[in-house]
Amino acid sequence: LASEEPPGKKQAAQSSKDELWHPSWVEATGERTIAQRLRAGPQDGEKMKLFTSWFCPFAQRAWIALEEKGVDYSYVEINPYEVDPQLPGGYTKKQLPIEVKKAMYPDFVQSSPRGLVPAVADPNGDKVWESLHVVQYVDERFDHPPFFLPKGDPLKRAHVRIWSDFVTERMQKNFYMLLMDQDPEKQATAKGAFFAECRTFAKAMSTDGPYFLGKEISMVDIALFPFWQRFLWVGGYYRGLVMPDDPEFRRLQSWWEACSERPAFKNTLV
Amino acid sequence: LASEEPPGKKQAAQSSKDELWHPSWVEATGERTIAQRLRAGPQDGEKMKLFTSWFCPFAQRAWIALEEKGVDYSYVEINPYEVDPQLPGGYTKKQLPIEVKKAMYPDFVQSSPRGLVPAVADPNGDKVWESLHVVQYVDERFDHPPFFLPKGDPLKRAHVRIWSDFVTERMQKNFYMLLMDQDPEKQATAKGAFFAECRTFAKAMSTDGPYFLGKEISMVDIALFPFWQRFLWVGGYYRGLVMPDDPEFRRLQSWWEACSERPAFKNTLV
Repeated sequence: LASEEPPGKKQAAQSSKDELWHPSWVEATGERTIAQRLRAGPQDGEKMKLFTSWFCPFAQRAWIALEEKGVDYSYVEINPYEVDPQLPGGYTKKQLPIEVKKAMYPDFVQSSPRGLVPAVADPNGDKVWESLHVVQYVDERFDHPPFFLPKGDPLKRAHVRIWSDFVTERMQKNFYMLLMDQDPEKQATAKGAFFAECRTFAKAMSTDGPYFLGKEISMVDIALFPFWQRFLWVGGYYRGLVMPDDPEFRRLQSWWEACSERPAFKNTLV
Repeated sequence: LASEEPPGKKQAAQSSKDELWHPSWVEATGERTIAQRLRAGPQDGEKMKLFTSWFCPFAQRAWIALEEKGVDYSYVEINPYEVDPQLPGGYTKKQLPIEVKKAMYPDFVQSSPRGLVPAVADPNGDKVWESLHVVQYVDERFDHPPFFLPKGDPLKRAHVRIWSDFVTERMQKNFYMLLMDQDPEKQATAKGAFFAECRTFAKAMSTDGPYFLGKEISMVDIALFPFWQRFLWVGGYYRGLVMPDDPEFRRLQSWWEACSERPAFKNTLV
């Protein structure tokens, strides 16, 4: 999503002011969160650093995790792309070579050896990368509720990991094919596969909601939220995607509404 | 590896007696483990079931985990392929449709919704699938040493997860490209990438060995062992792969020797 351009129509959003994003997000709480967290302070060396890119759904997972745990982190914006001043926002969507990233963002590449967001660096020296592994690290490093994996329940913990991966590997991958393919017939196939995976996911959700596991949030909610945001708005904008109206998608809609109301999730909406 | 045929030369191994496998493995402990675990007993309904295929490196991870924890499990062999009696062993390497698997192996598909090995079913009703998630589940379900993720160490636990994924996503993927590509130039590129990823991995290993983290095994060792076995023998057989002789590959070689001596690992060598 972040690194390639969906062909056709127009360029992907270059800022959160872009018309691509829903109007209600222009003054979104995410922008306020960023402004507040970017403000340097003398105590910043003592804070956990979040290396992120504002548009990246993977990085947003780590961001939600820190917000949920109430961590006093500092926000470090990384532009992983070559800059071309001719383009709006300067974003070329061409990944900078790792050597260039290393020169531009030495702290970041020390925390993320392949130069990909998200990553976190703790003042104690800990460095962790890969979105779901950052979420689990934050859960264990800040060992208090809300817990992203239910403590002492090996089965539920396994299912949380399985369904978090399912979001990336099944739902997101099919959505990405729908977005990138130019052939209408292949788009239709990808859309069908995407809907089927969404239904499989919905059937694994608790029936007493609102969250995936029920009354408590978990890593699965954190894993899906940034992507569902893009399924709705990027999908609607580029592909006229309208979610079906059936019990599975109604369950997902009530899940989306519940998550959107949660401050830690809302604080990351840009 | 298991599901497609490397083009050229000959078919992949159809049994552990195949010449593809190293002669020392013909009488391997893995075969004895299987024979012992397959023997039905009146108490089998009370045992954890391991759904596996003897040739599958992903399934072997779950198998090692159960052996390491000393679990009294029963071994359930799944042939995920269409059978053609004309072919040696009957293996076509064509995945059966999920409906057929459901009819043939109802218990298995209940434990693994996409019909992929490995999966485990606990007599208490727990069902878990996906290799690394089974390993973590087994670690938490049998809450005693050896621990596959070091207890109470969020950073080390994160790194164990990160480097376990690295095995699958970087080392194994490049090896697979080397194996499947027919163009010698592309094979050379894939081999270079594979060696580079192996060196990156080796540099992340503890220097005081023998295991990835040092004196104690972890999920990383379990994640890599089945693949390293295939890098050595399948790679050697099909592609004349010889591991370089440098500090990184010597570290990996000493790791391989230490793991091969460990009973739980050795018990899965087929």
